[in-house]
Amino acid sequence: MMKEARVHSFGMADPADVSALATALEAGAIDPAAIVCVIIKTEGNGLDNDWTRVMAFDALSRLLAARGVSLATGDMSCIVSGGCEGVTTPHMTVFERRASNAPAGGASLAIARAVGAPLLPEQIGTLAQVHNVQATVERALDQAQLTASEVEYVQVKAPWLLDHHQIDARSRAAITRAADAHGSKPWTRAACALGVALALKEVVATQVLESSINADWSLFTRRAAVTAGNDHLQCEVVVFGMSKRWTGGARVAHGCLEDLLDSAAIDDTARRAGLPPGRGTLPTAVLFKGDPARSGLLRGERQVMWHDSDVHPLRHLRAVMSGVIGAAIGSTRIFVSAGAEHQGPQGGGTLAVFAEPSAPRP
Amino acid sequence: MMKEARVHSFGMADPADVSALATALEAGAIDPAAIVCVIIKTEGNGLDNDWTRVMAFDALSRLLAARGVSLATGDMSCIVSGGCEGVTTPHMTVFERRASNAPAGGASLAIARAVGAPLLPEQIGTLAQVHNVQATVERALDQAQLTASEVEYVQVKAPWLLDHHQIDARSRAAITRAADAHGSKPWTRAACALGVALALKEVVATQVLESSINADWSLFTRRAAVTAGNDHLQCEVVVFGMSKRWTGGARVAHGCLEDLLDSAAIDDTARRAGLPPGRGTLPTAVLFKGDPARSGLLRGERQVMWHDSDVHPLRHLRAVMSGVIGAAIGSTRIFVSAGAEHQGPQGGGTLAVFAEPSAPRP
Amino acid sequence: MMKEARVHSFGMADPADVSALATALEAGAIDPAAIVCVIIKTEGNGLDNDWTRVMAFDALSRLLAARGVSLATGDMSCIVSGGCEGVTTPHMTVFERRASNAPAGGASLAIARAVGAPLLPEQIGTLAQVHNVQATVERALDQAQLTASEVEYVQVKAPWLLDHHQIDARSRAAITRAADAHGSKPWTRAACALGVALALKEVVATQVLESSINADWSLFTRRAAVTAGNDHLQCEVVVFGMSKRWTGGARVAHGCLEDLLDSAAIDDTARRAGLPPGRGTLPTAVLFKGDPARSGLLRGERQVMWHDSDVHPLRHLRAVMSGVIGAAIGSTRIFVSAGAEHQGPQGGGTLAVFAEPSAPRP
Amino acid sequence: MMKEARVHSFGMADPADVSALATALEAGAIDPAAIVCVIIKTEGNGLDNDWTRVMAFDALSRLLAARGVSLATGDMSCIVSGGCEGVTTPHMTVFERRASNAPAGGASLAIARAVGAPLLPEQIGTLAQVHNVQATVERALDQAQLTASEVEYVQVKAPWLLDHHQIDARSRAAITRAADAHGSKPWTRAACALGVALALKEVVATQVLESSINADWSLFTRRAAVTAGNDHLQCEVVVFGMSKRWTGGARVAHGCLEDLLDSAAIDDTARRAGLPPGRGTLPTAVLFKGDPARSGLLRGERQVMWHDSDVHPLRHLRAVMSGVIGAAIGSTRIFVSAGAEHQGPQGGGTLAVFAEPSAPRP
Repeated sequence: MMKEARVHSFGMADPADVSALATALEAGAIDPAAIVCVIIKTEGNGLDNDWTRVMAFDALSRLLAARGVSLATGDMSCIVSGGCEGVTTPHMTVFERRASNAPAGGASLAIARAVGAPLLPEQIGTLAQVHNVQATVERALDQAQLTASEVEYVQVKAPWLLDHHQIDARSRAAITRAADAHGSKPWTRAACALGVALALKEVVATQVLESSINADWSLFTRRAAVTAGNDHLQCEVVVFGMSKRWTGGARVAHGCLEDLLDSAAIDDTARRAGLPPGRGTLPTAVLFKGDPARSGLLRGERQVMWHDSDVHPLRHLRAVMSGVIGAAIGSTRIFVSAGAEHQGPQGGGTLAVFAEPSAPRP
Repeated sequence: MMKEARVHSFGMADPADVSALATALEAGAIDPAAIVCVIIKTEGNGLDNDWTRVMAFDALSRLLAARGVSLATGDMSCIVSGGCEGVTTPHMTVFERRASNAPAGGASLAIARAVGAPLLPEQIGTLAQVHNVQATVERALDQAQLTASEVEYVQVKAPWLLDHHQIDARSRAAITRAADAHGSKPWTRAACALGVALALKEVVATQVLESSINADWSLFTRRAAVTAGNDHLQCEVVVFGMSKRWTGGARVAHGCLEDLLDSAAIDDTARRAGLPPGRGTLPTAVLFKGDPARSGLLRGERQVMWHDSDVHPLRHLRAVMSGVIGAAIGSTRIFVSAGAEHQGPQGGGTLAVFAEPSAPRP
Repeated sequence: MMKEARVHSFGMADPADVSALATALEAGAIDPAAIVCVIIKTEGNGLDNDWTRVMAFDALSRLLAARGVSLATGDMSCIVSGGCEGVTTPHMTVFERRASNAPAGGASLAIARAVGAPLLPEQIGTLAQVHNVQATVERALDQAQLTASEVEYVQVKAPWLLDHHQIDARSRAAITRAADAHGSKPWTRAACALGVALALKEVVATQVLESSINADWSLFTRRAAVTAGNDHLQCEVVVFGMSKRWTGGARVAHGCLEDLLDSAAIDDTARRAGLPPGRGTLPTAVLFKGDPARSGLLRGERQVMWHDSDVHPLRHLRAVMSGVIGAAIGSTRIFVSAGAEHQGPQGGGTLAVFAEPSAPRP
Repeated sequence: MMKEARVHSFGMADPADVSALATALEAGAIDPAAIVCVIIKTEGNGLDNDWTRVMAFDALSRLLAARGVSLATGDMSCIVSGGCEGVTTPHMTVFERRASNAPAGGASLAIARAVGAPLLPEQIGTLAQVHNVQATVERALDQAQLTASEVEYVQVKAPWLLDHHQIDARSRAAITRAADAHGSKPWTRAACALGVALALKEVVATQVLESSINADWSLFTRRAAVTAGNDHLQCEVVVFGMSKRWTGGARVAHGCLEDLLDSAAIDDTARRAGLPPGRGTLPTAVLFKGDPARSGLLRGERQVMWHDSDVHPLRHLRAVMSGVIGAAIGSTRIFVSAGAEHQGPQGGGTLAVFAEPSAPRP
């Protein structure tokens, strides 16, 4: 029997609004046990005191718990990220994996998920985490019968260092890479990204040294986005690929932006995802991860966002990219996220576009 | 003898950096007496306490005063607007008008400037201001021998109501449209925009009632941008057109965006300004004025910017449009401004692209 | 049998943290049916997109609903206000009213609550609301057998105008005082404050004209705070007084600050609430409502907060007053709120200090 | 002949407003050559993109340059710090040192200034800087014939690491303590503070190790404030003391706040500066340096400022302290500054109050 991946997109009227998903569950359009991953974009500041993430997570937890699915025990991955700056609309994307009687055809969207072995606090941001993620991605590929080259995108939910992790480390005289949760995010993201790059053979093992992490920007994956915020010290990976072993007609394509204005890469990605030119058909989901260049320059011109103490640089970034991607693709349901260490080239980013030609967005 | 308009663009290393213009003046590349207008985009918040505008204005004043040109006496128009959110780079554009020995040819960029008769504080935001601006634009057209249909864009510097204007009004028991400078901006912009629309025959006089101002959004100009901030109660208009009476090969084209993601309109405007597709040639200047839709929706999706109390909605707007326009045109030297009452359709905006095929940007 | 009022203060570890109250309910220290009012200070921005208020309200609703008390049906008043700028700590105060066998003694804290008759949307911010609130306060006084002069403080939860209220008004061609919820807050607060002032005989009816509302700042109450945000169009008033008909030894005293630095008024209020000098004993609750002066001056010196577009003026206000009151009283559990139309003199504010000498704060 | 120190305070109507000082210079009330130090509080965000500091510095430079005094060549110290959050009013304080014919009397305010030997970029934030500052303070004491115990306060202007300093360091393969100017501020402040503590014998040399800097918070000065921002790599110290060798009757006293609400320490400092209780007389200047506690707690209660990504923690701090100090002293001309590494105990701060009983503030 074939497998089939389905992508569902729902608008959210407020950070705790899971009513559209509830309706779909009620109607039987989604099987709660088949959900692999939920990715949510909420409207908070996407920074330290962003409570909208908690609201969305808790609302989803309550909804699914009533249907026997627990977010706490890791039945599925739930990635919530704040920041609808610009024109991004708050929304959630639900990825479902089902058995299917549909006939085999061309390649369709494939999804696999794996959870890594637990790490120690002092391993976050180190080669130990890099290799842990590499192994986790490889395990997911096996599971989904995907080769590295069939992979289009990997979304990682990375652990961060909470206070109790720090206390644990100190009790063993172990030294962590960062003193608080916020400071640990660049480290955990960087290590995860390099782990994906190794698993997808985008870099070779001998290149990746302890000293490369958050330092050697020539090393990066073109096919991953990492979001920090897992409270337990495990890395969750969700792999998206195109495979003839899957059916249903859903598609995904990845792209890599060379800089923030690289709309040609977006157009090309949309085309490869099966979206016709002219924006007549909308994607089912768009994931983007990128950063402004550390040089403070874009095409040779001075950028002020890195020095803006009133509006965080990453809020500038998300607003800009909502416009760049929104204009290219015609949709404002974009999961745009910043903090792209080793994810895409310096000053650019990585992109995934999902499309389901036969199933227009609800 | 023909006239010729030249457009010069200079980056700014800080809000008071007028060194690139100083160099050009020093080298004789620009004649200070020939400057019609300077438009500056600085890196402050573009809101009430944006001191970067003062810095730029004062630096330019000092530079030009040393060369016999006074900003205070109205020898030229200086429009300074803060807000380089997203990827906009701080920069200034200098518009120069010279006599020319060049031969006549196809149409070239034409520039005209006129200053309106003084208004009373209580006239700001009323039909009196609408008609004042209409007459001022018509005078500028006469001056430049331009017909209304040859006009591509009108940039207006509108007066606002300072404390001493309010005191003056109260002394005559006159009632103003707004209690403070900040509150007067939407009114002065709206009246100016409708004045341009009348002069350019985009609306007819019988449609424009006192009650239409900031209320009837079906009335708007497709070819103007208004910036508030003139300390004396006069409206300054700078008209840009294409005319065979002018020479030099510089070009301008206007466009009108139906919504914030309308990149097709941008592409079309760039093409009509003479920029080849593929972003190989950069414009000499880009002016944009637009607003998020008052409905809070974009293509049917909920937008959060109007309810963001941490980052002002207009800062969201500027960041988005720096990306949308920047990606379409390949340049980050964009004068993007919000507060677009009666300037473009609700939720869209107006655009001017300047190009000078033979003279690459410094 | 006498009545007794008890004041309970609980810290909150996050906006949805009602665990301390849950523990007290579990232990029987608080009777859910006896709760008159809960006042919560949460850590959001206290402005338009402050979701922490929703989190706290929802968490409290769930907790109490499980014990048979509904926030929706108006069994009690729940006032949630965001903004812990400065040193204010997130916390909640629970006011309980019980029958008591304790002997009569000196005057003790008395609490009464009343809910006004429903208003029409177009009545919000008008004399109709003023008189509605006056009547409601008078009813509460009767209930609690309090005279106007025995009242120390009145906390009002005022309705605001939501979208459906506007639609209702428009369907009857009625004109409301403000176009949106945020804009309706100054109006509803002003009308409620004048209603309290009338009920407490602080102003006389002939002074309060339709045109006085949000205009004649010589009219104000010295003993009330109004918080906008009631979704149904009713005014809820909670009256705090000192009465010999009540027992238990809890106390309240009010004060009126002439300006933001008036620490003498704070010291005096604390003393009258029974707190010994020297800050050895903490109050059980502190309520403050105030605003910066509209003149932009404090003791003759220029204040910049009204022109700060990055940090909202009311956030400045709350931060300052957390320091002024916190230093005077030695506690950071302060319900500090801005938006004080007709509440205290221009540039000052109103204060209530609660103390329970025999029952140290948990 | 005796020496005399005078303290002048001037309000500022905007960040570049030096008109009050200009008037005083014009009137001969201040001798430009006698100015030792100018300390300015401007109304910007006090963070990375605060251009108001540049505006004030440039305006002062132009004013003094026209009178033969250069800020560039170090004739005097000019300390400009942004951040008038809360109720602080923008203002400048001018410290003047003159010969005097006045008779000796009790102790009067003494001022001395010294500039340290140039440092290398890699020495910033290290013991080398600590000892450099120690020596510089000792030199200033000699100059002013002050003993360490006569010193009330030391204001330090500390160098920070600009891009060209980093390039210089890298060219010698030297490693700096921080990668950019903003990141270098905590290091340069910490080293300067410990240098003062050594010079004033508040700590002993054997306690201050390389590893103590920004780590051992038990080491601190009770009598200094350090502001980072010197573009050349020299430390400027201005020492304020009370000495019988000086005349004129001006006074200074220092205090040390144990936490942010320690108004008793403020009251005591004001009293020792000669201000009568009851706030009838205003100080001529108030300097404060402090930080919220790293624990995130104040008197055991949770503080949210460290996790506020919308309003910077140091902006919270400045707003609070404008209220705490303003209420205690009755003035809003407060130079309140955050970033208090080794300056006062953790969670507290250092304070200097200047008074001139006979000369009321202009």
